[in-house]
Amino acid sequence: MTSATEVVTAFIRAIEARDLDRALAMVTDDIVYDNQPLGPVTGRDEVRRILSGGVSAAADRIEWVVSHQVGEGDVVMNERVDRFLIDGAWLEIPLAGLFVLRAGRIAVWRDYFDLEGFGRARQAAGLTSPPGGA
Amino acid sequence: MTSATEVVTAFIRAIEARDLDRALAMVTDDIVYDNQPLGPVTGRDEVRRILSGGVSAAADRIEWVVSHQVGEGDVVMNERVDRFLIDGAWLEIPLAGLFVLRAGRIAVWRDYFDLEGFGRARQAAGLTSPPGGA
Repeated sequence: MTSATEVVTAFIRAIEARDLDRALAMVTDDIVYDNQPLGPVTGRDEVRRILSGGVSAAADRIEWVVSHQVGEGDVVMNERVDRFLIDGAWLEIPLAGLFVLRAGRIAVWRDYFDLEGFGRARQAAGLTSPPGGA
Repeated sequence: MTSATEVVTAFIRAIEARDLDRALAMVTDDIVYDNQPLGPVTGRDEVRRILSGGVSAAADRIEWVVSHQVGEGDVVMNERVDRFLIDGAWLEIPLAGLFVLRAGRIAVWRDYFDLEGFGRARQAAGLTSPPGGA
């Protein structure tokens, strides 16, 4: 039996490896993903769209560095810096995330971060398109 | 022996009761408090300054509603909506917080939220001073 924290760690590893099929096998069909300041989306396809677009599409490498992660039962929270290597510079987003699992899959995922700080980091990385993805 | 999650819950209850002496007895002398988009402060006096100013000073009532809270050892994280009743309207800040305890007291406290959304909520509540407190 895989624990909820192990599922979240494997999910993040799959995102870093850009293996979205493997990542999305760990979420429910009806997942609610709330990239908090941007508003929620529902369903695996929407999560795929966001994880394959935005800064992820522009990045040569993705590293989500977890500084703290705690879980109880089906609830996992972590503090991370999501890093994207773009044109040789790391764009870094400090954030905190919540994951609620159902039957071993991620059914709710909410990340909390400062959108304005993210915008400044995007600009510093030379990205000008509107924010739309993690 | 009080658990770390119990300390964090008691800390939030004391803030809601506006009993800052009771709240600050639960933090270390050298606490690092990072209201993440605003930058960190160090020490009990700085935490008192922030918790007694800003929207807290303007509020007739304070409610920090915890939707999820998980802890392991000395680390606690929660997802909350921090609510401040100002001139009859609730200003609400959705956020996620990290607390790291040392010897039963809160030594690190970091809240993650969207500063721009907070600014819009402050404006809607009729507050015009620059943000500086929770």
